[in-house]
Amino acid sequence: MPTTDTAPASNLRHAAATVAARIETVMRTDLETALAGCDPLLMEVLQYTLFNGGKRIRPLLTVLCSRCCGRDDEPLYLLATAFEYLHVATLVHDDVIDHAEQRRGQATVAARHGIPAAILAGDWLHARSMHLIGRLAGAEGLDIFCQATASMVNGEFEQLRAIGDSTTTRQHYFSVIRQKTGNLIASTCAIGALFAGATIAERQALATYGDHIGAAFQVVDDLLDYLGDPHSTGKKTGNDFVEGKITLPLLLALNSASGTDRQAIETLIRGDRTRPEAYHRLYALIEQQDGFNASADTARHLVASAVEALAIFADATEVQATVALLKDLAGYILARNK
Amino acid sequence: MPTTDTAPASNLRHAAATVAARIETVMRTDLETALAGCDPLLMEVLQYTLFNGGKRIRPLLTVLCSRCCGRDDEPLYLLATAFEYLHVATLVHDDVIDHAEQRRGQATVAARHGIPAAILAGDWLHARSMHLIGRLAGAEGLDIFCQATASMVNGEFEQLRAIGDSTTTRQHYFSVIRQKTGNLIASTCAIGALFAGATIAERQALATYGDHIGAAFQVVDDLLDYLGDPHSTGKKTGNDFVEGKITLPLLLALNSASGTDRQAIETLIRGDRTRPEAYHRLYALIEQQDGFNASADTARHLVASAVEALAIFADATEVQATVALLKDLAGYILARNK
Repeated sequence: MPTTDTAPASNLRHAAATVAARIETVMRTDLETALAGCDPLLMEVLQYTLFNGGKRIRPLLTVLCSRCCGRDDEPLYLLATAFEYLHVATLVHDDVIDHAEQRRGQATVAARHGIPAAILAGDWLHARSMHLIGRLAGAEGLDIFCQATASMVNGEFEQLRAIGDSTTTRQHYFSVIRQKTGNLIASTCAIGALFAGATIAERQALATYGDHIGAAFQVVDDLLDYLGDPHSTGKKTGNDFVEGKITLPLLLALNSASGTDRQAIETLIRGDRTRPEAYHRLYALIEQQDGFNASADTARHLVASAVEALAIFADATEVQATVALLKDLAGYILARNK
Repeated sequence: MPTTDTAPASNLRHAAATVAARIETVMRTDLETALAGCDPLLMEVLQYTLFNGGKRIRPLLTVLCSRCCGRDDEPLYLLATAFEYLHVATLVHDDVIDHAEQRRGQATVAARHGIPAAILAGDWLHARSMHLIGRLAGAEGLDIFCQATASMVNGEFEQLRAIGDSTTTRQHYFSVIRQKTGNLIASTCAIGALFAGATIAERQALATYGDHIGAAFQVVDDLLDYLGDPHSTGKKTGNDFVEGKITLPLLLALNSASGTDRQAIETLIRGDRTRPEAYHRLYALIEQQDGFNASADTARHLVASAVEALAIFADATEVQATVALLKDLAGYILARNK
């Protein structure tokens, strides 16, 4: 059934909910198999971190990408689950790194079960994820996946090195977000296509789509860190600034400001970033330099490029229904508020 | 060349040094390939943690196990490197979990480069390790490996749960060390055999060998935590007690003590374990209950069982030379003092 112009959001919502429900069933069965006889605390920690209302966007991408290359069967959902495991593994480790207490309005694993449990549960999920990819997508899938995870770690290192550095460039910012988010989303899409036996052109198109929506996702994330409503996002605004991360809104403000405004921004970056007044002053300066609108424009351009990459897909109704969902998903990234 | 009775240690030393040198060369080449264009800090952290005088026992096991099943070629050393990567990944994460400042007399990665760098570098090594195993040992190798890493995490959880619990059983202790150390060493051996196209019986024998020496290794490790010379081991004694880990010497003392001695031990476990007097008192009680000697006996029994498992190998001189090295390695585990 092709999407109609009147109800794209509802089609996407329906597809997302259907896939998410199936992924959760597969995940529960997989955990039962993999954790048979395991320590009850490990099971508890994994269930706590895996079943907390996650949107399952990565598995949805794997499923849709495989589906639009002609495959949609039972093993696909186990393969797709591997991407959710990896995603959650990185969240759990990130929360240790960032000393985060809350995630999606709940205590993080690190806060609730302690740092050892968080590091170990992340390692378990990481191992299980690669295990499934290796088994289901073969050596070629594992290659794509491991290059993406290695590049994710490298992106984190590049970000660490740039903390509090007001000379960071746009190029550096995009290099970091492509490595941290884009490559992994691209691999999620490319491996879905590979699994379906797609042509090289189809795989490339879906990887490009994934790379662009991954970058857009991160740009929106960085924007929500300033503009988000804590009741929706479940976390305070201004974290990135406090941590010294020069994300796109601030970077664009730095680029467009001159004279005393630029000096004022640099002074705030170098000063005590934990003071609420510092954040409020910075926020006003970014707004004045149109940094928020310019960031939102960038996200829109990325989503447009993602959608363009899908042009190679055939006109067959069946394929176009799935392609339409991928387009809706790209659009959803712009609209999300949490 | 078969080992002679007069020079087993020197044959093993020679083989170990030759393999270690070759592994380090392969590791440097692999890092250059995998990290081309990467962040300089990631490269620095990985080099710091990988090239610090490690004994490369795991790669040596992979090489010897493959060799006694008839294969000894270039790719074997890259496969063997994967086990060193995983080993170092777990050490780096363990040091975060244990808040360790020193390892082998040097600052830990966590202490020197910070916790984010340590978690991320561990994740990179973990990913690279599985990538190599999947590529070189196929889906079957990845299965063995991932079961072992999952069980390692589970062992850590079982250990966490038993912290400070004086009712811990011998069975629980061996379950934990087999999961934490035995399974992974067994997988190192089994995958070496699999790589060489060994028979099921050969693979099973080498896995049993690995499981027993892995357990013996951990028993000796736990003994060195009490009896080691900090100048040799590079770490203080008594860490396990301070952390509330009921390892074999203490467990055997608890089992054999009765009346006031047992009460005294239990009081020390429940009390403030950071006081040096508490540790000295506990040490005396373990010695009085013969806990150290009984633990050393256990390690000897495990090593004897490991050596017995090798009996199935053919009498061919070439194979027996390698089997002799595996036997020497098992013996070395008892003799090590760091």
